[in-house]
Amino acid sequence: MLYLQLLLVKLGTKFVGVKLGILGLGTVGTGTVQLLQDKTGRHPLLQEIEIYRVGVRSLDKPRAVQLPTDVLTTDLEAIVNDPAVDIIVEVIGGLEPARSLILKALSNGKHVVTANKAAIARFGAEIFTTANQSGVYVMLEAAVGGGIPVIQPLKQSLSVNRIHTVTGIVNGTTNYILTRMQTEGSNFSDVLADAQRLGYAEADPTADIDGLDAADKIAILASLGFGGRINLKDVYTEGIRQVSKTDIAYAEKLGFVIKLLAIAKRITPSSPSSPLSLRVHPTLVPQAHPLASINGVYNAILVEGEPIGQVMFFGPGAGAGATASAVTSDILNLAATLKTQRVTTEKLDQSQIGSLNPLLACGHDEYSQIAPMAELITRFYARFLTNDQPGVIGKLGTCFGNYGVSLESIVQTGFQGELAEIVVVTHDVPEGNFRQALAEIENLEAIESIPSLLRVL
Amino acid sequence: MLYLQLLLVKLGTKFVGVKLGILGLGTVGTGTVQLLQDKTGRHPLLQEIEIYRVGVRSLDKPRAVQLPTDVLTTDLEAIVNDPAVDIIVEVIGGLEPARSLILKALSNGKHVVTANKAAIARFGAEIFTTANQSGVYVMLEAAVGGGIPVIQPLKQSLSVNRIHTVTGIVNGTTNYILTRMQTEGSNFSDVLADAQRLGYAEADPTADIDGLDAADKIAILASLGFGGRINLKDVYTEGIRQVSKTDIAYAEKLGFVIKLLAIAKRITPSSPSSPLSLRVHPTLVPQAHPLASINGVYNAILVEGEPIGQVMFFGPGAGAGATASAVTSDILNLAATLKTQRVTTEKLDQSQIGSLNPLLACGHDEYSQIAPMAELITRFYARFLTNDQPGVIGKLGTCFGNYGVSLESIVQTGFQGELAEIVVVTHDVPEGNFRQALAEIENLEAIESIPSLLRVL
Repeated sequence: MLYLQLLLVKLGTKFVGVKLGILGLGTVGTGTVQLLQDKTGRHPLLQEIEIYRVGVRSLDKPRAVQLPTDVLTTDLEAIVNDPAVDIIVEVIGGLEPARSLILKALSNGKHVVTANKAAIARFGAEIFTTANQSGVYVMLEAAVGGGIPVIQPLKQSLSVNRIHTVTGIVNGTTNYILTRMQTEGSNFSDVLADAQRLGYAEADPTADIDGLDAADKIAILASLGFGGRINLKDVYTEGIRQVSKTDIAYAEKLGFVIKLLAIAKRITPSSPSSPLSLRVHPTLVPQAHPLASINGVYNAILVEGEPIGQVMFFGPGAGAGATASAVTSDILNLAATLKTQRVTTEKLDQSQIGSLNPLLACGHDEYSQIAPMAELITRFYARFLTNDQPGVIGKLGTCFGNYGVSLESIVQTGFQGELAEIVVVTHDVPEGNFRQALAEIENLEAIESIPSLLRVL
Repeated sequence: MLYLQLLLVKLGTKFVGVKLGILGLGTVGTGTVQLLQDKTGRHPLLQEIEIYRVGVRSLDKPRAVQLPTDVLTTDLEAIVNDPAVDIIVEVIGGLEPARSLILKALSNGKHVVTANKAAIARFGAEIFTTANQSGVYVMLEAAVGGGIPVIQPLKQSLSVNRIHTVTGIVNGTTNYILTRMQTEGSNFSDVLADAQRLGYAEADPTADIDGLDAADKIAILASLGFGGRINLKDVYTEGIRQVSKTDIAYAEKLGFVIKLLAIAKRITPSSPSSPLSLRVHPTLVPQAHPLASINGVYNAILVEGEPIGQVMFFGPGAGAGATASAVTSDILNLAATLKTQRVTTEKLDQSQIGSLNPLLACGHDEYSQIAPMAELITRFYARFLTNDQPGVIGKLGTCFGNYGVSLESIVQTGFQGELAEIVVVTHDVPEGNFRQALAEIENLEAIESIPSLLRVL
């Protein structure tokens, strides 16, 4: 408060706080405005944050929040060009005009807080380069894990660790669907339809169901955790459409639950320059694993590194309130950081750009090297439908053996009509070897089909 | 790196980094030095951190780390008085001389990083007052939850929330003992003896077993989460000595596990000025609760607030590496913060004290109001040994009813010799009412004894 008082004395009675330009007043924007307007019992620094402009598409739409008429505007360009605005809060989502507005704001010397995982995952390189050139920060806690603090811990609290693996359940919709399939023994399509009816899945569920949203998020987490840029197209992505209730039931018998995991892993943890494996796919998770008990719309991110060992962050991965908590905390962190810089200078000039806090700013500009999936070492689960001939299991075992695939378990589990069902779990194996063995197995006369193929954590 | 280069130009070839004075070279101190000396693959800012002095008790003791002879000294006073030292890292632990050295360092304008929960929980008021007067920071991530990022999330990432509850498994020793009692069906004293043999419990286990360590930690978490100072003596503290394998088995049958929880809760969450309940005690936790599956030496802290909902932080609660991760990340955060301040001024002068980052500095100086335990609203579990007379259950029910205690379940579970064993779980009730009912029940002729009384989450 001392700083504020000093400024009030210096500048007369005019309130000098941090002025926000908020772009978008949808679910997250509305939640953020509600939080900013309801300051009692929250951090006193909120008193110094002013909602200066809010950019919307229509001025006539009824809103859940009350704002002075001169605050609302449809001219979003004007907000990012307004010299009075200190921080742009981008919560319109999507790629354009979000990208252009963010870049413009940064070029104009404004800090940016964004919840836009899609834009950051695709345009992170130009966004962070522009931010560094302008000497400003881009904050994105809300982009991954909704309200869960995970971006800041990765950037700050875990910053001295060599990160080995970041493994996340980062999409609430798919986790909700898989949880219900597990507990109810239901089909994917039935649960999806019900989730859409209840508002847990979008009318067009592609981004969630096909793993694209999770891919955006693991690209961001990998970039922060491993200190290198990520090409989104390098993230191998498989969704949950092909996960069947049959496999969920078999997995349970074998001691696993099936989760859509987003995984970023240094292939050789002891070598900080070794390539990364980046992937999103349904995964058999051992029931005792910390991520196995994360159910429903909850998210969790498990970070493994040296010397920390395992830490996990758990919480609501979406929702207006939780996401607004992340957005607003980013705003508050910026306001707090600006206070320490501002006492000596109102605006940073060019010579001071190097003084950006190196844990808050993006410090890398090289791309991480990504290993091809064939080099991934993992366990596999596969389900085969076979003609019930004697010796089928032997033939399977021989084919796997030819490619160095050793088996952890092989079980004939039952029958589907005339066909015998065989489930196999392998030990760790290079994915390329496993695929070669599988190609040979597919050609065996005894093999009718291979309905399921999943990776095992 | 730009900043560093500028300084190098300005000051010639002399390396200008952040100079550390480390007090103590025990487990945590050694882990911290090892981390600071092993920079490859970690954040590049570590290059700018210099281990300038390390204060030890004996120069002759063999050490696991190599340090130049002019770095090691037995004169700890000289380190905190050395004008060249920027940050004091206090990892000697205990109350004195830690407290005096911290206060001296702060008065001398040095930032302090500490892992000392005992000193912070007892002397936090004078320590943070001194820090604010000197315009420096006290960082304490390692004081609670070992390597788990929880202090920084509470101070920064969750700063806009109205915190309702902080509930933690914050003592690894007791969680290890309770987990083994649960999985092995063993007695407390047997597991304790084995834990001592294996190094999971101290020779004098009092601080852990009797809940004192957890009380220190919840006092710190409550202070941060609720923004008010805490008198350590206001934390109601019960340890795990009285937890029997009998109760663990009954709890399991009823759908609970027994955990030593440290709980800070605003009695009326909707009223930010209502008093807090602060307590450490063994607690029956529903098996589906996120804290129920935290086993062994792991710690977890569950934070509930508005609008965030529930978030949980999970990880290693102790150990040289994990704790060093927290200590060193605090050092790095300070170094990063100092960089943004230092470009314009080498040392803050008095007029700039108000420019401390208000999320990193301690912003409160009033004590929180603490509710007496009698006003706590909670569920109870109680086990009674009774003479097997007809109507005992009815008499129990009547006594409870007289004081408004309603029962969730009442089960006659078995016999111990001639005595019948009855287990009761209540609905939420003011603790005072429950105690009154219990006093009346103790006087019933049919009641032989009440061997167990535990709270239920």
